[in-house]
Amino acid sequence: MEPLNSLDELSPGQEFDLGRFALPRQEVLDFARRYDPQYFHLDEEAAKGSTFGGLVASGLHTLSSAIGHLVRSGLITRINLAGGGMELSWPAPMPPDTEVAFTLGVVEIRPSRSKPEMGIVKLRYLLKRVDNGAVVLDATATHFMKR
Amino acid sequence: MEPLNSLDELSPGQEFDLGRFALPRQEVLDFARRYDPQYFHLDEEAAKGSTFGGLVASGLHTLSSAIGHLVRSGLITRINLAGGGMELSWPAPMPPDTEVAFTLGVVEIRPSRSKPEMGIVKLRYLLKRVDNGAVVLDATATHFMKR
Repeated sequence: MEPLNSLDELSPGQEFDLGRFALPRQEVLDFARRYDPQYFHLDEEAAKGSTFGGLVASGLHTLSSAIGHLVRSGLITRINLAGGGMELSWPAPMPPDTEVAFTLGVVEIRPSRSKPEMGIVKLRYLLKRVDNGAVVLDATATHFMKR
Repeated sequence: MEPLNSLDELSPGQEFDLGRFALPRQEVLDFARRYDPQYFHLDEEAAKGSTFGGLVASGLHTLSSAIGHLVRSGLITRINLAGGGMELSWPAPMPPDTEVAFTLGVVEIRPSRSKPEMGIVKLRYLLKRVDNGAVVLDATATHFMKR
């Protein structure tokens, strides 16, 4: 995507289509082994007896992949200074090899009182399964960005 | 740690000391390469010119490592059914090879109306640098847990 040059190119209500991606089974297992070794993220057979009814990606993996996808899109490379925090939910789990569509929304833009060269931007990351529309990630993140 | 057998062993205000950990430089770079390839997580020299003044771990890495640490402690292995969401902030960045202390707090416990065999537990993950007390992660997460 064309990189933004200033947060002033953003306005509340704007939406960016960031395309689609899936998490390959092997990657789901690798992430879980390192960062979230719970049986429903690691063991195909045992996961059938979990609340999920089968193997699902760690929610941290879903989140990290979404941000990796956003960073790689190039959209905010020139303006993103730091992340401050986030509110997020995983309404539905993300199974391996299941395509999701990523929409980035601009929620709010505030100037920084102390630093006029930057602002505080709230972005919403929304990931929906392509096959059934289920939301697998709904996150609103605070970014510090350059003017 | 001794695994909990039921969420009824938890009560609001309880705190668990989950020990300490650090993120080795190589792991910081590996995580960033895959999930958060921004220069202040990847490039030692370039990071000096960032708001952080040096290389810092991706906040997603800090978060994922904390949860990995919690899962590996064994404390909630028998009772954790799923995670529902989270509110989090990264008040200070986490540099590589810097020890942090992890405290887990019990914030709230609610019964599930539809499923008496489970409940909704809010846990606070607090990570503080051992050297200067700076908070690098303050997260309150919703867990679905077994009675």
